[in-house]
Amino acid sequence: MRIAILGGTGDIGEGFALNWAERHQICIGSRKSEKAEEASDRYNDTLASQELKGEIRGFDNRTAAEGSDVIILTVPHEHVLEVINTVRPVLDRQIIVSPVVPMSKKEYFEYTPPVQGSAAEEIQEMLPDGMHVVAAYHTIASKRLCSLDPAFRCDVLICGDHRPSKDLVIDLTNEVDCLHPLDAGPLAAARTIESLTPMLLNLAMLNQLKDPSIKIL
Amino acid sequence: MRIAILGGTGDIGEGFALNWAERHQICIGSRKSEKAEEASDRYNDTLASQELKGEIRGFDNRTAAEGSDVIILTVPHEHVLEVINTVRPVLDRQIIVSPVVPMSKKEYFEYTPPVQGSAAEEIQEMLPDGMHVVAAYHTIASKRLCSLDPAFRCDVLICGDHRPSKDLVIDLTNEVDCLHPLDAGPLAAARTIESLTPMLLNLAMLNQLKDPSIKIL
Repeated sequence: MRIAILGGTGDIGEGFALNWAERHQICIGSRKSEKAEEASDRYNDTLASQELKGEIRGFDNRTAAEGSDVIILTVPHEHVLEVINTVRPVLDRQIIVSPVVPMSKKEYFEYTPPVQGSAAEEIQEMLPDGMHVVAAYHTIASKRLCSLDPAFRCDVLICGDHRPSKDLVIDLTNEVDCLHPLDAGPLAAARTIESLTPMLLNLAMLNQLKDPSIKIL
Repeated sequence: MRIAILGGTGDIGEGFALNWAERHQICIGSRKSEKAEEASDRYNDTLASQELKGEIRGFDNRTAAEGSDVIILTVPHEHVLEVINTVRPVLDRQIIVSPVVPMSKKEYFEYTPPVQGSAAEEIQEMLPDGMHVVAAYHTIASKRLCSLDPAFRCDVLICGDHRPSKDLVIDLTNEVDCLHPLDAGPLAAARTIESLTPMLLNLAMLNQLKDPSIKIL
C-alpha cells in the first residue's frame, strides 16, 4: 500500500513512517519537498540503524498524495484547508486519516471545535464526493510511537462513517506493535475523541505525567 | 465526614457507600425514604458479610443532604433539577459532586450537553452563591467499584474551579483502593469528561468490552 504522510516531518509522522516502512511504501509530504527529503533521509538512517527494511521518500504534499491509497493528515488545524486545497487536484480515492485537533491554550488547553462539530467532520465537508475521512491517532504520545517498543502499548480510538475505510485504518493500526485499535463509532464521535488531546495535555501539566496516552480497561 | 449519596440506591451509589463506610458517615438518599432504607439494609449486609465496619443509613434526599459535608449526585440528568430543588432549603456549604452525564441513544450513545456546556456547569448555575461543583466519577464501571478489588484500579478525572473542594474530592477518591484520582483542570473540562461516558458505552458495544473504564498511561 502507498501511504502519504502529509506534514510528516514532525515526530508523529516519523513514528508512523518507521512503523509502516517495512510493509508499505511511505511518502512523506511537506510544503517544501527539500524539508520532506531531509526528514526522509533521517528516518531511513533510523531504519538502517535498527536493521529494519523499507525506504521512506520525501516529496511536496501534492506529489506525496498523488496515487496514494491512504493520506495521513498530520498537520495543525490552521493549515488543513491550505493543505487540502494543495492536494485537491490529485484527490480521487484516497482514504483521509485525520488526527487533527483544533485547540487553543490560555491557562489550560481547550478544545475549539469548528461549527461542523469536529475537525474530522469539517475535513469531510472539504472533500470531493465519495471520499471518506477516518478520525484516529489523536491520543498517541509520539515518543511512544517512535520508540518502536511494544511495551508502550496504548489504545487508539478510531471513528468514521464508511465501514471499509475504517476497517482499513484499524488493520493499519494493528500492524503497529505499540498500538491497539478500538472502533469508536461514527465520525460524529470525533468530537469527543479530538477533545481527548487537550484533556491529556491538561492531565500531563496538572499531574506531572510524561507522554500520556489512553488505555481502555 | 458526612457524605450524602443522592439517588444512591443504584449500583454506583452502592459502590461508594461500601468503599467509604469505614471512614465516613454515609447517608443514602432517594425520592422515597423507604427505598433508601431498603438499599442501606442491603449495603450493611454486604459490609457485614465482608467483615467491614461502618453503618450506612437511608433517608429521603432532603434529609440525607441536610448537614452533610459532601453530596454525591448520582441521579440521571433528567432528574437533576427536581433533586436540586428538593434539597435547596438545606443547601449551605456542601460540596456537590457531579457524575451526571446528559446523553441519548439512537444507533450509538451520544453526548447531549446543555447550553452551559456540561451538566456540571448547569448544576453550578442552579446552586446558591458560594457553593461549588466538582465533576468526577463519570468513567467508573460500577462493578469494579462494588468489587472492592484494588486489582480493578482505574483513573478518575476530576475537575472544578474551587481548589479546596476539588482537593477534598481528590482525597476522598484516594481512599478508594480501586480508584486513582487525576486533576483534570477547571469545571469547563467537564464537557470532555462527561462525553467519555457515551464514548465508553460505544466502545463497549462495538468492541465487546465489559465494564470499560479509563486509564491514563
